[in-house]
Amino acid sequence: MTKEIRLNAFDMNCVVHQSAGLWTHPRDRAVDYTNLEYWSGLAQILERGRFDGLFIADVLGVYDVYGGDVDTALRNGIQVPLNDPVLVIPPMAQVTSHLGFGVTCTLSFEPPYPFARRMSTLDHLTRGRIGWNIVTGYLNSAAKGAGMDGQNSHDRRYDIADEYMEVVYKLWEGSWEDDAVVRDRSKRIFARPDKVHKIHHHGENYRVDAIHLCEPSPQRTPVLYQAGASNRGCEFAARHAECVFLLGPSKQVVAPRVADIRQRAARYGRNPAEILIFTLMTVIVGRTEAEAKAKFEEYRSHISHEGALTLFSGWTGIDFSRYSLDDPIRYLKNDAINSAVEAFTRADPNRTWTVREVAEFVGIGGMGPILVGSPEQIADEFESWIEATDLDGFNLAYAVTPETFTDFVELVVPELQRRGIYKREYHEGTLREKLYGPGRARLPESHPAAAYRHRAPAAAPAPIVTDGQSLERLS
Amino acid sequence: MTKEIRLNAFDMNCVVHQSAGLWTHPRDRAVDYTNLEYWSGLAQILERGRFDGLFIADVLGVYDVYGGDVDTALRNGIQVPLNDPVLVIPPMAQVTSHLGFGVTCTLSFEPPYPFARRMSTLDHLTRGRIGWNIVTGYLNSAAKGAGMDGQNSHDRRYDIADEYMEVVYKLWEGSWEDDAVVRDRSKRIFARPDKVHKIHHHGENYRVDAIHLCEPSPQRTPVLYQAGASNRGCEFAARHAECVFLLGPSKQVVAPRVADIRQRAARYGRNPAEILIFTLMTVIVGRTEAEAKAKFEEYRSHISHEGALTLFSGWTGIDFSRYSLDDPIRYLKNDAINSAVEAFTRADPNRTWTVREVAEFVGIGGMGPILVGSPEQIADEFESWIEATDLDGFNLAYAVTPETFTDFVELVVPELQRRGIYKREYHEGTLREKLYGPGRARLPESHPAAAYRHRAPAAAPAPIVTDGQSLERLS
Repeated sequence: MTKEIRLNAFDMNCVVHQSAGLWTHPRDRAVDYTNLEYWSGLAQILERGRFDGLFIADVLGVYDVYGGDVDTALRNGIQVPLNDPVLVIPPMAQVTSHLGFGVTCTLSFEPPYPFARRMSTLDHLTRGRIGWNIVTGYLNSAAKGAGMDGQNSHDRRYDIADEYMEVVYKLWEGSWEDDAVVRDRSKRIFARPDKVHKIHHHGENYRVDAIHLCEPSPQRTPVLYQAGASNRGCEFAARHAECVFLLGPSKQVVAPRVADIRQRAARYGRNPAEILIFTLMTVIVGRTEAEAKAKFEEYRSHISHEGALTLFSGWTGIDFSRYSLDDPIRYLKNDAINSAVEAFTRADPNRTWTVREVAEFVGIGGMGPILVGSPEQIADEFESWIEATDLDGFNLAYAVTPETFTDFVELVVPELQRRGIYKREYHEGTLREKLYGPGRARLPESHPAAAYRHRAPAAAPAPIVTDGQSLERLS
Repeated sequence: MTKEIRLNAFDMNCVVHQSAGLWTHPRDRAVDYTNLEYWSGLAQILERGRFDGLFIADVLGVYDVYGGDVDTALRNGIQVPLNDPVLVIPPMAQVTSHLGFGVTCTLSFEPPYPFARRMSTLDHLTRGRIGWNIVTGYLNSAAKGAGMDGQNSHDRRYDIADEYMEVVYKLWEGSWEDDAVVRDRSKRIFARPDKVHKIHHHGENYRVDAIHLCEPSPQRTPVLYQAGASNRGCEFAARHAECVFLLGPSKQVVAPRVADIRQRAARYGRNPAEILIFTLMTVIVGRTEAEAKAKFEEYRSHISHEGALTLFSGWTGIDFSRYSLDDPIRYLKNDAINSAVEAFTRADPNRTWTVREVAEFVGIGGMGPILVGSPEQIADEFESWIEATDLDGFNLAYAVTPETFTDFVELVVPELQRRGIYKREYHEGTLREKLYGPGRARLPESHPAAAYRHRAPAAAPAPIVTDGQSLERLS
């Protein structure tokens, strides 16, 4: 196997991201999420470990399905309080040189015009290390915060998202030509007005007649991430996303999803091998298997069942507070529940999960698998996952932060490097170049954004003014 | 005179903020606005000079009044390209400990719910050093960028702004009680749900039913800045603002404006002396008067007339491209023009300004006065201004950045300190405490935001259970 494994760390600007209750672990530093030092320290750890990026999740709402209110979320710090993810990126960029930043921003609550400026600014300040995880919103509470009765229907949200993308592509790719900014002090010309174009978009949901406020940033369009799991979401990802983030408890579940995304991307004329696909994974590593297992058991003792079920209720839309921890899930008379936990039952059809077991599975690292073992065992599993699923890499959640990442960097990274399946040094250049190689700072021509680039009108062929002789020589 | 002079530096995330053409000066670094190093270096200079804050301007549109298009703005880099101002603050906070940050954000293009989160996050990350310059938008091009035909009428914008403030006050002040977050690892309680309250706002323009997403930040509500000059704008400032920024070319013009703001604030039951009022000023200082004058003349040689008039046209709404540089302004048959340049004529009623002279005045530092001289002369002028106008301090624009600030810090600050009218050290604590003293991290009870704080239902008076003797002693 020669495929290079890609790695993102997965975090969120809050106390509990995916591991409910583990903020109470004495070594966990998630409670420091309001401090710049937490973020700059994390970024330095990840860059030392040659992580491709830090992927920052976000929601603009609260988990209020469990028990019908936000109480358990608040008591357990479950993704609430939750600070803005964008603002921690520039200070992390300041203390690193290569680490990429994939930031989750919903397009539901801000017009594309100021949003495009925010992303371009991030791309400038990070020198081209920004990625955008495109989210259309999924919590009803978020819509209520923004003054709506509830969110738009799922497919309607994706229709709006397609139009939103069209507007930001026009702004990022089509407004300023590459040679618009000359910065010529002696001629006293900063930019050439003839090279800057007003974009015109008159659509169903958006209307914009303006130039983009920012000069071209290193990548123009940020590296695009997407995590849609529905049919419509997968279509959106196949069309727009460069990196896809998907969930699955086992190789058997993940493999067909990977193949499906690549097939869809190919149908849009894109190179299916260049869609980089990541799955959620949590790694608990020790110098030995025994050390790892002991660490895992110690972590598990901090799990909050109600906290884990608060997350799971939010993800599935089912209020698990109505069931007892010992209820076997397959006997709950509710198709929605069976569908929600399909992931678990499919992974091992002979097993009957109880609500408690689901809570304890979800309680560390959320819905992704947990690998527990020695560096060699983790590396073996990584190879086996890539082999069996055609994945490109992993979004690594933490059990205890930053310890989970520090352990990984110190123990697993050297083993992966030894096997030649993980980079020893970053490529130079932007995040897109680090992912795809030199000269790839911008989106390829096969990407839909390329259609919005400014094309000079085809020049009429210059008239040939010459004498008969030279015309002859030319022919 | 014992009043302590307050100072903000005035900058913008772009090439040309107020001094048109001076980006071509060989020592000017404004073209580095896309680099984190420019901003972190500037912040360190200002903190060395004990500046209270860096005030960052913003507009979400372009200057397209001059000539009816954006061409001269682009050619001269006049506030376009213009990057997001919020994103440069966390990296500046990372390299400083005391400097405050007053950031301009319009409330026209983002709902209050995500905006409140962004400001709370900034307040957390800066440890309470954030201020917000409240802007309702003034460029029609910004409205067009956001998909509207044009902006709302001036007074209507302020009505919407009053309601917007009500929503963000509810979120910042009323949602989380001070003791809501306990972070108790042993009891496994992050926050107490009974201390976190959903806010309910059903108004004409906004509807929000949600808890604030952020736990209380050091200041809760950021320090509030405002710069409205109209009657309605001054009323808004008098009601909401803690710091007011006003423009005027001379002490005679500024003094009554200062008095007016203080009188209005008093009518709202606020302490008029605590409204900190700043005016725009540009300082060109040398070790001697001759050195300062030579520097000023050298700077002046870089002014762009069309660039300055592009700014002036945007501010006044009048297309100055239709006049020749030698046209005397008082003879232009246009009442609007006479009103726009009233500031100039009022400063010296016997003088007739030409368009060229206006351009050359505005060309360095915009509409504010320029002080040119030795450190002693500058300090004398500062004292004289404060004495004559009852101002609290100055927003200092740059001619050449960061040179204008470095010169000021090295030459003027020691002179002000020697005179005992400028701090030698910062107060500890948040920006609000640095401005108002210890214990003042939060807005005072006299501020309208205080009305939205959560009040526990008044407890019934505890029954007096005692014997006759002690009751007697009590009476």
